[in-house]
Amino acid sequence: MLKVAIVGASGYTGVELLRLLHCHPEVAITCVTSEQSAGKAISEVFPTLRSRYNLVLENLEPVRIADRADFIFTALPHKAAMEVVPTFLKLGKRVVDLSADYRLRDAKEYEAWYEPHMNPTLLEQSVYGLPELRREKIAGADLVANPGCYPTSVILGLAPLLKKKLIDPATIIADSKSGVSGAGRSAKVDNLYCEVNDGFKAYGVGGAHRHIPEIEQELSLLAGKQLKISFTPHLVPMDRGILSTIYATPTGAVSSAELLELYRAYYQGEAFVRILPEGSFPSTSHVRGSNFCDIGLAVDNRTGRVVVVSAIDNLIKGASGQAVQNMNIMNGFPENLGLEALALFP
Amino acid sequence: MLKVAIVGASGYTGVELLRLLHCHPEVAITCVTSEQSAGKAISEVFPTLRSRYNLVLENLEPVRIADRADFIFTALPHKAAMEVVPTFLKLGKRVVDLSADYRLRDAKEYEAWYEPHMNPTLLEQSVYGLPELRREKIAGADLVANPGCYPTSVILGLAPLLKKKLIDPATIIADSKSGVSGAGRSAKVDNLYCEVNDGFKAYGVGGAHRHIPEIEQELSLLAGKQLKISFTPHLVPMDRGILSTIYATPTGAVSSAELLELYRAYYQGEAFVRILPEGSFPSTSHVRGSNFCDIGLAVDNRTGRVVVVSAIDNLIKGASGQAVQNMNIMNGFPENLGLEALALFP
Amino acid sequence: MLKVAIVGASGYTGVELLRLLHCHPEVAITCVTSEQSAGKAISEVFPTLRSRYNLVLENLEPVRIADRADFIFTALPHKAAMEVVPTFLKLGKRVVDLSADYRLRDAKEYEAWYEPHMNPTLLEQSVYGLPELRREKIAGADLVANPGCYPTSVILGLAPLLKKKLIDPATIIADSKSGVSGAGRSAKVDNLYCEVNDGFKAYGVGGAHRHIPEIEQELSLLAGKQLKISFTPHLVPMDRGILSTIYATPTGAVSSAELLELYRAYYQGEAFVRILPEGSFPSTSHVRGSNFCDIGLAVDNRTGRVVVVSAIDNLIKGASGQAVQNMNIMNGFPENLGLEALALFP
Amino acid sequence: MLKVAIVGASGYTGVELLRLLHCHPEVAITCVTSEQSAGKAISEVFPTLRSRYNLVLENLEPVRIADRADFIFTALPHKAAMEVVPTFLKLGKRVVDLSADYRLRDAKEYEAWYEPHMNPTLLEQSVYGLPELRREKIAGADLVANPGCYPTSVILGLAPLLKKKLIDPATIIADSKSGVSGAGRSAKVDNLYCEVNDGFKAYGVGGAHRHIPEIEQELSLLAGKQLKISFTPHLVPMDRGILSTIYATPTGAVSSAELLELYRAYYQGEAFVRILPEGSFPSTSHVRGSNFCDIGLAVDNRTGRVVVVSAIDNLIKGASGQAVQNMNIMNGFPENLGLEALALFP
Repeated sequence: MLKVAIVGASGYTGVELLRLLHCHPEVAITCVTSEQSAGKAISEVFPTLRSRYNLVLENLEPVRIADRADFIFTALPHKAAMEVVPTFLKLGKRVVDLSADYRLRDAKEYEAWYEPHMNPTLLEQSVYGLPELRREKIAGADLVANPGCYPTSVILGLAPLLKKKLIDPATIIADSKSGVSGAGRSAKVDNLYCEVNDGFKAYGVGGAHRHIPEIEQELSLLAGKQLKISFTPHLVPMDRGILSTIYATPTGAVSSAELLELYRAYYQGEAFVRILPEGSFPSTSHVRGSNFCDIGLAVDNRTGRVVVVSAIDNLIKGASGQAVQNMNIMNGFPENLGLEALALFP
Repeated sequence: MLKVAIVGASGYTGVELLRLLHCHPEVAITCVTSEQSAGKAISEVFPTLRSRYNLVLENLEPVRIADRADFIFTALPHKAAMEVVPTFLKLGKRVVDLSADYRLRDAKEYEAWYEPHMNPTLLEQSVYGLPELRREKIAGADLVANPGCYPTSVILGLAPLLKKKLIDPATIIADSKSGVSGAGRSAKVDNLYCEVNDGFKAYGVGGAHRHIPEIEQELSLLAGKQLKISFTPHLVPMDRGILSTIYATPTGAVSSAELLELYRAYYQGEAFVRILPEGSFPSTSHVRGSNFCDIGLAVDNRTGRVVVVSAIDNLIKGASGQAVQNMNIMNGFPENLGLEALALFP
Repeated sequence: MLKVAIVGASGYTGVELLRLLHCHPEVAITCVTSEQSAGKAISEVFPTLRSRYNLVLENLEPVRIADRADFIFTALPHKAAMEVVPTFLKLGKRVVDLSADYRLRDAKEYEAWYEPHMNPTLLEQSVYGLPELRREKIAGADLVANPGCYPTSVILGLAPLLKKKLIDPATIIADSKSGVSGAGRSAKVDNLYCEVNDGFKAYGVGGAHRHIPEIEQELSLLAGKQLKISFTPHLVPMDRGILSTIYATPTGAVSSAELLELYRAYYQGEAFVRILPEGSFPSTSHVRGSNFCDIGLAVDNRTGRVVVVSAIDNLIKGASGQAVQNMNIMNGFPENLGLEALALFP
Repeated sequence: MLKVAIVGASGYTGVELLRLLHCHPEVAITCVTSEQSAGKAISEVFPTLRSRYNLVLENLEPVRIADRADFIFTALPHKAAMEVVPTFLKLGKRVVDLSADYRLRDAKEYEAWYEPHMNPTLLEQSVYGLPELRREKIAGADLVANPGCYPTSVILGLAPLLKKKLIDPATIIADSKSGVSGAGRSAKVDNLYCEVNDGFKAYGVGGAHRHIPEIEQELSLLAGKQLKISFTPHLVPMDRGILSTIYATPTGAVSSAELLELYRAYYQGEAFVRILPEGSFPSTSHVRGSNFCDIGLAVDNRTGRVVVVSAIDNLIKGASGQAVQNMNIMNGFPENLGLEALALFP
């Protein structure tokens, strides 16, 4: 049994890790931490865990934690992660970090979008943990930077087109929509039920969202050249789910059927990517509670653009499920272990 | 008092007309029709109307209706509208038609997207009823084609940019999101609560939605040249509201502040268009239950694109409220009469 | 024009007063206060008010406010209200207080459920402002204690049965369900969208909710004897609405039809109480956005109990709408002025 | 591997069985039927199943099905079930029936609430499948009548009190609230998103719901005497979940702490019943997606009543999860096999 600690267990990605790992046959959770709720039973903070988890939340003391765990998930806000991850690595632990702190290769980019990086050399060592793109590197990594939720949906949605150079990289527009859990569990008026329910809004309009550099980094690698995208996030009155509608202009004549065939070939053998039949498009409700990324697309013959639609559960394939998938790869477990749950529908 | 009939009163736009006109001081509703529910009290079909409306739903017999009403709202599905509107006009009645039947100037376009038109000559006579663009023609019209919900949000969102030729008309992408009431009140599995709740999806992907020709017609008129747009509608788990996120490439250097200034000047004096301050963006929850169209925008300096976001209540500014606004204009009433309600928030 | 101040305008009942009074022909809002947001434009705090209200939120300085207003709504938390209401009264202003501070006749009861009362003599002077029970006293009052949301639904639901002594007062159980806006606008984890959405829970189980003494006071007056009730509140994932399901044992043989007839007679002439036909029961969605209280009932012949179901919009008939109704009565305006809006459905 | 057929697989309980059994290590689904959708791939009807289920829906031909399956779930409407269950039994198959057809012991009761029973002798043979009350009989049964959703929540909530004769059986009132999936997947206006969202209503008021005889049968057995209850169901705008608030008058002095202790003892060792600590009460969101029944209670010292609150996921512990639990018992599998998923929260 792999002894696992979850650092930052009182947020939504933390409880989601606990939920997923409860049914994982190779894992034992030995430690959970929370600065806010240290001393409380985890089942008091999350009554969903009652009668299945008897753990008490602890303070974040890396050395003490490392004593009891061989594998660490850090589910902390950015900056808080880079304050402790190096210690875990020094102590010989392997880490999947769910924050943004080790996703960007370039410390200057990190500084431009966040703040100065505290351990920039680790950026070279960490692996951007999108299994469908980088499975082998993940297998050998000590530090995996778990991708952001929006980036997962956009990168998986565009990878085949960019890899095959079928679209003009200068034309990409990603219009993304997220459920509210993406905003976390902190008490803010903006995220109150009555502020969100029965409404829909855009935010970060005009290229302001911090997931942009991460998306551009990975898309540029796929395209083999530096690109920039227009990206607009939106807030949907639902708990979970991200759907990205992505527009681009093909470099040559293509049909929906051809592109779908290409996607099916590209993602051949992937357990968690499903390419939909022509004329079908994803819904977040068909992936809610699962680790799937569903992708559909259509070529708009009137305007010549291709429109790709991808959907994930932001807390699973967009966070904790992908983190478990990375853990499985890093430990030689079957990649789908503990991740086979189908979407909860309705 | 203007004697008003509502033809097709058992759908959501019908009951919304009744709701709005209950507080209109110049209107008396004399007749409501419904093929499905003829013989039933309107308050049985819509218990919200109890104790305020004692009308009984009637069959659609145009001549009998015309006897009792001087002004007609036709809130019927397309095709059903064009079967009766000519009769009302012949009988000297003025009509606001909420269907798609008289919105397109070109009968061939109507045929391409719908079916052969039954009275194409009326297309020349009808006025596309977007008051902010065509107030004077509406005032003198006998037949006003009330705009669609998506088109209202997109056209108002782009009018200043196109009119001033500030964007390349070939680059327009409108990514629109609608509440569920836009799908009407007919019993379909797809619109069941459990199919829609807590999920988000795209539909009509690839240029398939019937509102496209209507949007293109009006945008082309504004631009002074024929244009085509990419348009993708989405379904949001909420009752009401449309938010359109619209992307375009400016023809020259522009700033967010300049464009907002332009918008404020363009919509100067408009009772129902609100241009938001820089850095603020609309939410459908801020227009829910009102006749407002809220518009915000930002220039994305990284990609050079401008992003316009517009929000309306699809049943009010996107349907019945705009219909009442048109009725007010056609009858010389103050344009905001009966339409001053602020958004119901929360 | 009546010059009106709203003290505590940055909460949900405050903005609802502004929304309702925007369409009230006899009122001019001259002053709005908020300790948290003083100095901000009210339309910045509530974008729904944009272009219609230009007021800036002020600090709560009673004397300065009284200079500019003749009528005061205090929409403050309990305790905060009793700190300022006496000053407004001394300055000759008439007040509708939306807090709990002047609802209970008995200062000891107030102390038992809240804390020591600061001006207990005012409890005799204030009038419990349920217009359907106490219209004449309200008309002459300087201080009206606006009823709580749950109490409004329960008292209106039971008044006819108790007044006519048709039920055993010892058998009353009120199982009430409220939308989330009843919890106010303060930032608490419990009221976050993701904590509330798609779930349902009870709270204050076992007779712990502070609305109990208020309900019992009014029901006891109606019954002519002291009574106690079982009351359990619940939280529904919706913005607005309260529905109370009330059980009691009749003292003799009764039928649903007879009781409905009694209710119709009792509420004869009331503008805002609607008694539903036999076999029909209220839904909060049929009163959402309106000042109505809808009531239905059935006698359960199997168990001999009567079940009354009442529904209101908690922010309107349960708060701000009733406050405006009281203001209308106190000022000799038609009671329904500004309150004729029908429910926003869907 | 147990070969399993799901008869009536195109409804919500059918797809929920498929979802749960996908992760069950001892089961192979060999056959799924649907009269409406025969010939379609199950993954076309439920896109959540894509890439994991390749089954095609078949017509309901019992003999053909029995050839390929050893264990049958009938997830059909009442009446449709009793048309086929006898055939499966004759062919030597074991059946869990999710309809109401074999739940009542008394054919006259069935006739009074439904219609004449077609095979009343089977009523003696079938076992009412609430594992916590009747585990051993279930183990040996060929036909298990899977309990209704409301009954599961009410019976589990009251069993300890009635068994120990601590309450007066004549005083029971169960006020229950259900998510919309309980209404099934058929296309009805009443269940459209816009009719349900953001609203709350009672239905079947006055003792009209068909789950009443089932609840009374089981509670009477527990109490050792015939009893009747008041039961009012309500519709909550959420997908899943039932919460029952149950009132009763104790026969003697009791405290919350004593009763909770009793409940913990009564349900000692039960995998799926969780008794909450004093002062905590269940929420449907804490059981959503799980097979748990959470129970909390309080004695209201003011009125002397006890209030029990129980919560389940209506599609899992209230239907398909309990059906799998029964299947596990009938086949000697560990009772929690395939049922260990924790609630999906948020």
